[in-house]
Amino acid sequence: MQPWFVYRKCSNRSCDMCIYFLVLFASVCLQVQIKREKALDITSEHLIKAMADQMANEGWRELGYVYLSIDDCWTKKQRDPNGRLEPDPDRFPSGIKALADYVHSRGLKLGIYSDMGNYTCGGYPGTTLDTIKTDAETFSSWEVDMLKFDGCYSNDTEKAIGYPKMSSALNATGRQILYSCSWPAYEGGLPPKVNYTQLGNICNMWRNYGDIQDSWASVLDIIKWYAVNQDVLQPTAGPGHWNDPDMLITGDFGLSYEQSKAQLAIWAILAAPLIMSNDLRTISQEAKDLLQNRLLIYINQDSLGIQGRQIMKVDCLGVWKRELVNGQYAIAVINMGDDGLPRPFTTSLGLLNVTQCPVGYKLYDVFDRNYLGLFNSETTFNLKINPSGVVMLFIQPASVVNHMKRHGSYFG
Amino acid sequence: MQPWFVYRKCSNRSCDMCIYFLVLFASVCLQVQIKREKALDITSEHLIKAMADQMANEGWRELGYVYLSIDDCWTKKQRDPNGRLEPDPDRFPSGIKALADYVHSRGLKLGIYSDMGNYTCGGYPGTTLDTIKTDAETFSSWEVDMLKFDGCYSNDTEKAIGYPKMSSALNATGRQILYSCSWPAYEGGLPPKVNYTQLGNICNMWRNYGDIQDSWASVLDIIKWYAVNQDVLQPTAGPGHWNDPDMLITGDFGLSYEQSKAQLAIWAILAAPLIMSNDLRTISQEAKDLLQNRLLIYINQDSLGIQGRQIMKVDCLGVWKRELVNGQYAIAVINMGDDGLPRPFTTSLGLLNVTQCPVGYKLYDVFDRNYLGLFNSETTFNLKINPSGVVMLFIQPASVVNHMKRHGSYFG
Repeated sequence: MQPWFVYRKCSNRSCDMCIYFLVLFASVCLQVQIKREKALDITSEHLIKAMADQMANEGWRELGYVYLSIDDCWTKKQRDPNGRLEPDPDRFPSGIKALADYVHSRGLKLGIYSDMGNYTCGGYPGTTLDTIKTDAETFSSWEVDMLKFDGCYSNDTEKAIGYPKMSSALNATGRQILYSCSWPAYEGGLPPKVNYTQLGNICNMWRNYGDIQDSWASVLDIIKWYAVNQDVLQPTAGPGHWNDPDMLITGDFGLSYEQSKAQLAIWAILAAPLIMSNDLRTISQEAKDLLQNRLLIYINQDSLGIQGRQIMKVDCLGVWKRELVNGQYAIAVINMGDDGLPRPFTTSLGLLNVTQCPVGYKLYDVFDRNYLGLFNSETTFNLKINPSGVVMLFIQPASVVNHMKRHGSYFG
Repeated sequence: MQPWFVYRKCSNRSCDMCIYFLVLFASVCLQVQIKREKALDITSEHLIKAMADQMANEGWRELGYVYLSIDDCWTKKQRDPNGRLEPDPDRFPSGIKALADYVHSRGLKLGIYSDMGNYTCGGYPGTTLDTIKTDAETFSSWEVDMLKFDGCYSNDTEKAIGYPKMSSALNATGRQILYSCSWPAYEGGLPPKVNYTQLGNICNMWRNYGDIQDSWASVLDIIKWYAVNQDVLQPTAGPGHWNDPDMLITGDFGLSYEQSKAQLAIWAILAAPLIMSNDLRTISQEAKDLLQNRLLIYINQDSLGIQGRQIMKVDCLGVWKRELVNGQYAIAVINMGDDGLPRPFTTSLGLLNVTQCPVGYKLYDVFDRNYLGLFNSETTFNLKINPSGVVMLFIQPASVVNHMKRHGSYFG
C-alpha cells in the first residue's frame, strides 16, 4: 500500500537531539491509479501541489506535519544518457526541482523515494551500488529534504553495503536530507540479522516489519509484533533514530473510529513517525480531528524521545506506558477483543507505577479531551475500553503548575 | 457477541407469503455488563423500554424495524416451583408480560430467547425436551412475538427432536410467534447433516454459520462462506423461511464506514434478516443514515424473497446480484482487498445479464443516493470500489414508470 502518508521525523539524520517533524508522503502509484481512471488529477505534481496547499491551509503544517513525500513510481522507466534518474514527464512535467520549490514556498519539505536494488518495488529503475553517489547528488541538486530508501531487488550483501553508502553519500552532499531506511524490514527486523546500533548511526528512521494494510487485522498484527519484540526494539529508538511501524491508516477506508484512535495511541506511545496516508482533500472531519489532536501529537513528539512499552496484558487488554519529559507519562489501554463488548479496567497510578510525585498527578483523557482531576497513587479509577478501541491518558505531576500555559491548550 | 440487534422477519412462521419485519434484539448479557459497571441502566427492562422508545420515536419502526428482542441471560438461575422460567427480578422487576405490553404500546413486537439444551449458552436454565411445551405456553402467555431458540448444551439427537417439537408447541399456542432456529449453525450448516427442507417447514429463519464478531475479518469470513456454499443455501431461502448470516455490526465499534456499507449491501442481497446490534441511544448519524437507507431496505425486503448470488469474482472483487420484483435487480460489487487502493470495475448490463427490458434500465446508486441515468445492455460504465467497501446499484426497467411514485422516494 503506497498512497498518501505523513512522517514525523528528526530534521537531520546526524543530529543527536533535534526538533521533530511530521511528514506527508505522496505516492505516485496512486497517481497512476488516478490517471487510469481518467480523473482530473492526471499529473502527480498537480496532486502533490494540491496536498501541499492542504497542509499549509488546513492547519497541518503548524502541528508539525511538514514533510510531503513522493513514493515509488515517479521516474521514467530508464535513466537519462548521463545515468541520472529522471521524473516521468507526463506526471511531473515541471520536474522535481520546481516541485520542491513549490513545496518549500508553502513552508513544507519534499521527500522522495528510491530503492537499494536493480528495480524499485514498482519496477522502476533502482539505485544500484554504482549509482548511489549520482542519485544522492541528484536529490540534493533538486533540494529534496528526505529520502525513503526501499529494498526490493537486492540481496543481503548489496543492502549491507548500499544502506551505509547512501548515508555517507547524502551526508557528502552537505544538504540535510532525512534518511528513512527500509533495510531491517527486509531482514526480519530482529538481531542478529539486523544491527540496530549501526542503523542508529546511519538512518533517521527505519521500517522494522512488513507493510501495513488498510485493515484493523494488519494494525493489530503490527502492534502485537512490537509488543513481543519490545525488549529488542524499544532501546534502539531515540532522537534522530526511530522505529517506524509504518503509516497511519486513519482517514483511509479500513478502520473504524475506535480502531483509528487505537492506532494513533499506540503509534504515539511507540514514538513512531506519524505518516498519514489519506487524501487531505476529502478527509472526514472525524479523521481530521483525530490526526490534529494536539495532546496526542505532544505525546508523540515528546522531547525525551523515549519509546514506550506494553507494561501489562490482561486477557484482551494491553496496557502501554510512555515516560515523557518533566515527569509526565502517557498511558494507553487498548482492547484487542472483537466480541462487541466494552471491557472495564480498574487501576490506579500506583498499579501503573506512576508514584514519584508526592502531591499527585493531573489526569487528562487524550481523545475525550477531558481533564479528569487530581489523582494520588492509591486512588483507583475505572476505564471502559470499547472493542478494538483505546483509552489514552496523559498524566502530569500536580507540581507542574504552569505547564498548560506554556504549551497552550492541549485540547485546542 | 450478544448485545443489541434487529431482525427482519416474516410475521408468522407458517405463512407462505407474508409481510416482512425488521427486529431489534436486546441482550440481557449486555445488561449484566452494564450492571457490573454500576451504570444507570441497571435494569434490563429499563434498557429495553429505552430502546423501544428510540425505535418508535426515531423512525425505525416505520421502516420495518419492529421486533425488539431479549437475548440470553434474562432468567433466574432456577425455574420456579411449577417448572416455569422466571425473569431475573433484579433486572425485570415488572416481569416479561408487562414489558411486552409496553413494547406493544409502542407499536413494536417483543422477542425472547431460549436454548434447546440443559443450559443456555450463558449458563442459565435451558429448555429440555420435557419443558418445551411449558416454555412455549409461558412465552405465549406473556404475549411474546418471537423466539430465538439457541442450541448450547444438547446433542444432535436432542436437537433433532427438540427443534421440530418447539415449532409444534409454538403453533399449538395459537399465537403467532416468529421462530428463529440456531440449529443448523450447530451442525455445520450444510447437508447432509442439515435438512433445509425440514427447516423451511418448521422455522422462519435459521443461523447457518458461526457467531459474527465485531470486525471486518469476521464479516468477510461470513460473506465468503455464503458465496462458497451458495448452491446449497440460496434455494433454501424464501418468504417465511430465511438464511440468517447473523447480526449487522454497523453502528458498533469494529467497522469502518466502507465496511458497514459492504455488510449492509451483501445482507440485502442475501435477503438476510437485518438485525441491529448497536445502542440506538448513542448511534452515530452516519450509521443511522446507513441503517435507515430506504432503498437498501426496499431491496432487502423485496416481495419475491429470492436470495441473491455471487455471480462473478475478479481478483478481490466479488459481484453479487439479486432478482427483485417487477424485473428489477440489485447489484453489489464488493472490494475484499485491503491494499488501500480503490479498484476500478468496468461492466455493462449485458455483462451482468440484465437484458430482458428492450427499452433499457434506470440505474440508481443505493448508498450515494443518486440516479445514474438510463442504460441499455451495451452501455459500459465504470465503478470505483473502495478497499473493504462496496458499490451497490438498484436497476429498474425503464418501463416501470410509476414505480417511484408508488413507493415514495427511495432516497427519502
